[in-house]
Amino acid sequence: MTAVASHQPGALMAAEIAEQPAVWRRLLVEGPAAGLDAAAAQIRRRAPRTVLFVARGTSDHAALYAKYLVEIRLGLPAGLVSPSTMTAYGARPDLRDVLMIGISQSGGSPDLVRSLEVARAQGALTVAVTNNAASALARAAHAHVDVLAGAERSVAATKSYTAQLLALYLLLDRVIDGNDASTTAAEALPDLGDALLARDGEIAAIAQRYRFAQRMVTTARGYSYPTAREAALKLMETAYVSAQAFSGADLLHGPLALVDPQVPVLAVVNDGVGGTAMEDVLPRLAERRADVCCVGHPAAVARAAAGFALPTGVPEALSPLLEIIPFQLLARHVAVDRGEDPDAPRGLSKITETL
Amino acid sequence: MTAVASHQPGALMAAEIAEQPAVWRRLLVEGPAAGLDAAAAQIRRRAPRTVLFVARGTSDHAALYAKYLVEIRLGLPAGLVSPSTMTAYGARPDLRDVLMIGISQSGGSPDLVRSLEVARAQGALTVAVTNNAASALARAAHAHVDVLAGAERSVAATKSYTAQLLALYLLLDRVIDGNDASTTAAEALPDLGDALLARDGEIAAIAQRYRFAQRMVTTARGYSYPTAREAALKLMETAYVSAQAFSGADLLHGPLALVDPQVPVLAVVNDGVGGTAMEDVLPRLAERRADVCCVGHPAAVARAAAGFALPTGVPEALSPLLEIIPFQLLARHVAVDRGEDPDAPRGLSKITETL
Repeated sequence: MTAVASHQPGALMAAEIAEQPAVWRRLLVEGPAAGLDAAAAQIRRRAPRTVLFVARGTSDHAALYAKYLVEIRLGLPAGLVSPSTMTAYGARPDLRDVLMIGISQSGGSPDLVRSLEVARAQGALTVAVTNNAASALARAAHAHVDVLAGAERSVAATKSYTAQLLALYLLLDRVIDGNDASTTAAEALPDLGDALLARDGEIAAIAQRYRFAQRMVTTARGYSYPTAREAALKLMETAYVSAQAFSGADLLHGPLALVDPQVPVLAVVNDGVGGTAMEDVLPRLAERRADVCCVGHPAAVARAAAGFALPTGVPEALSPLLEIIPFQLLARHVAVDRGEDPDAPRGLSKITETL
Repeated sequence: MTAVASHQPGALMAAEIAEQPAVWRRLLVEGPAAGLDAAAAQIRRRAPRTVLFVARGTSDHAALYAKYLVEIRLGLPAGLVSPSTMTAYGARPDLRDVLMIGISQSGGSPDLVRSLEVARAQGALTVAVTNNAASALARAAHAHVDVLAGAERSVAATKSYTAQLLALYLLLDRVIDGNDASTTAAEALPDLGDALLARDGEIAAIAQRYRFAQRMVTTARGYSYPTAREAALKLMETAYVSAQAFSGADLLHGPLALVDPQVPVLAVVNDGVGGTAMEDVLPRLAERRADVCCVGHPAAVARAAAGFALPTGVPEALSPLLEIIPFQLLARHVAVDRGEDPDAPRGLSKITETL
C-alpha cells in the first residue's frame, strides 16, 4: 500500500483544523518573544499615520480583519494595496509615515516580497507576518512576526489563517497599549476553540443540506465580514461551490437580486456591532425567501432555517477566530461528501507565485 | 394601454447604456466649470498624503478604479474605507493630511453621508462625486464634482458608472497637472464609445452562449480589475447569474479550483500592463479547460473560445470606460433572453439606504 493510496480525503485539512487551539496557545505563550514585542515597539517608535496591508488569498482576509482593527481600535486610516501597482505598474508612492504589513503563510510570493521591498525603499516601516521566519518576505521587512502555526501541508489554509488573525490582534494590541497589554480576552480562545471542534457532528449534519448546492452566498458585517470572505474561499477551493461573499450592506446594493430559495445564504451574526448591523439584512433575505443558515448569536440561529450557535460574551474583535471554524469544517464535509479531496484541490499548489 | 404595459423589458437600461458617449461629451465640456476645476484646486492646495474612498455597489467599482489612478499616477497610498467603521463602530481616526472622496450616484446613502461628515470633522479634505448636486453627500463635502449623467431611471447603474470613471480621471488629471491638463486622450472616447454601441449585434450573439449559465467568473488585472467587478455585478443584479469577479492573481490563489468547463470565464485583457499580466492567467485557465470569452486586445480575443475586440491604442487608464460597455450590453441581453426585466431587478430599489 502506497502513501498516496492510504490517504483519506481531507485528512490533512481535518488535522490542521483541529490543531488550531494548540497553535493559538503557542502563539499566546511564545509570540511575544518570537517577534510580536519587537515589531510592536518599532511601530510605536515610528508612530505611522497610515497603515497599508499587502496580501493575497486567505492572507488577504486576515489583512481585511486587521484593517478593521486599525480603523476602529488604532484610529488610523488603512488600506489594502493592489500589489500590481508597485510591481507591474512600477508605482513609487510616497510612503513616509506609512506602516506596510505584508501577510503570507509561506512568505514566498514574489509580488508580495517586491511590494514590501518597494515600500521600504519609499520610506515605509515594513512588517512581515508569515509562517516562515526564513522566508524572503520575512527578510525583506524591518520586522517579522512569526505566526508559529507549524508546517501547513493542506493546500486549503486553515490553521495559518487563524494564527494570522491572532498574531495581528496581539500585535495591534501591543501597539495600542504597549508590551504590557493584557491578553486575558485572547487567552480564553483556545478552550472555546476546542469546544467548537467537538461539535463537528453538528456541521456534518448541516453539510447534508448543501450536498447538491452549486451556488452559495456568504454575508456578514464589520469584524465578521472577513469571515464571510474566507468561508466563501474555503467552499470554492475545496468543494468547488460558486460561493460569493458580500458585506451585508453591499449585498443590498445589487447582489440581493440573485438570491432566491435555490441560492443558500450563510450569514455570520456576531455578538456585537456587526451582528446588530445584520438585523437590517436578514429581513430583506426573508423577503427573497432565502434559505439562511446562521452562524453566531444563539437568538439569530434560532430564527434561521439552519444554524450553528457560537459562545456569547467573546469580544467582537476576537470572534473571527472562532467563527471561521464551523465554515472550515463545513467546507471539508461538503467536499468529502462530494467525493473530492480538499487536501489537494484541482488546479492548485500550496505556494502560488504571482508577479 | 398603460405606461407599465407598454414597457419593453430592459428598454430603460438600453437607453441609458446608449446615452454614455453623450454623457462623456457633456462632462468633457461642462465638467471643468461644474466642479472639477474647483475640487482639483482644493486638493492641490491641501496636498494630501493619503487618499481614501468611500462608496458602495457600482460606485465602489469606480472607487477601485480611482484607487489605481491614485497609487500609480498620483503616487500616494490609497484605501477603500469600510463605512461601518465610522458609522456602526464609531471610529474617529486621525484624518489630517487625508483626502476622502465619497462616490455615489444618488448622493443619498446615509452611511456615506455620515462617513464624509465624520471624515471632515476628523480633519480630512472631503470631495463628493455624485450625479446630484443637491444631494446630502454633495452638501456634506468641501467640494462637489457633478458627473452630469442626467437622471438615471434604470435600477442597474450604467451611464452613471462610466460618468464617475471619467469624472475621477479628469479630477485626478487636474490634480497632477493643474487645470490646464490636456484632455486630448479622453476626448477620443465618445466616438469610440459610439462605435462599440453600434456592435450590439455581436453581443446579442455572445449572449446566446450563456443562455443557461448559472455561474460565471469574471477576471482581469490592474486598471481593468474594476471592470471585472462591475461586469459581475451587472450580471448578478439583472440576469441573476452567480458571477464572481477575481483579480487574475487572486484567481490563482484558490478560486481557480472552482473553474471547470461548466463555469464560463469572462476575461478582460487590455492593451497595456494589466493585459500583459493576464498572460500568466490564461494558460492556467486553459489547463482547467475553461470556456473563456475574452474582451479586449484583438490578439487575445482571437485565441479565446469567444470574444469581443476593443480598439487598440487607448491609454490603459482610460480603457475601463470602453471595456464595460460590452458587459453592460451582455448583462441586458442575457437578462431579457431569460424573460427578466433588467430595469427593475427583483428585490431592489434605485436608492439603497444602509446605515
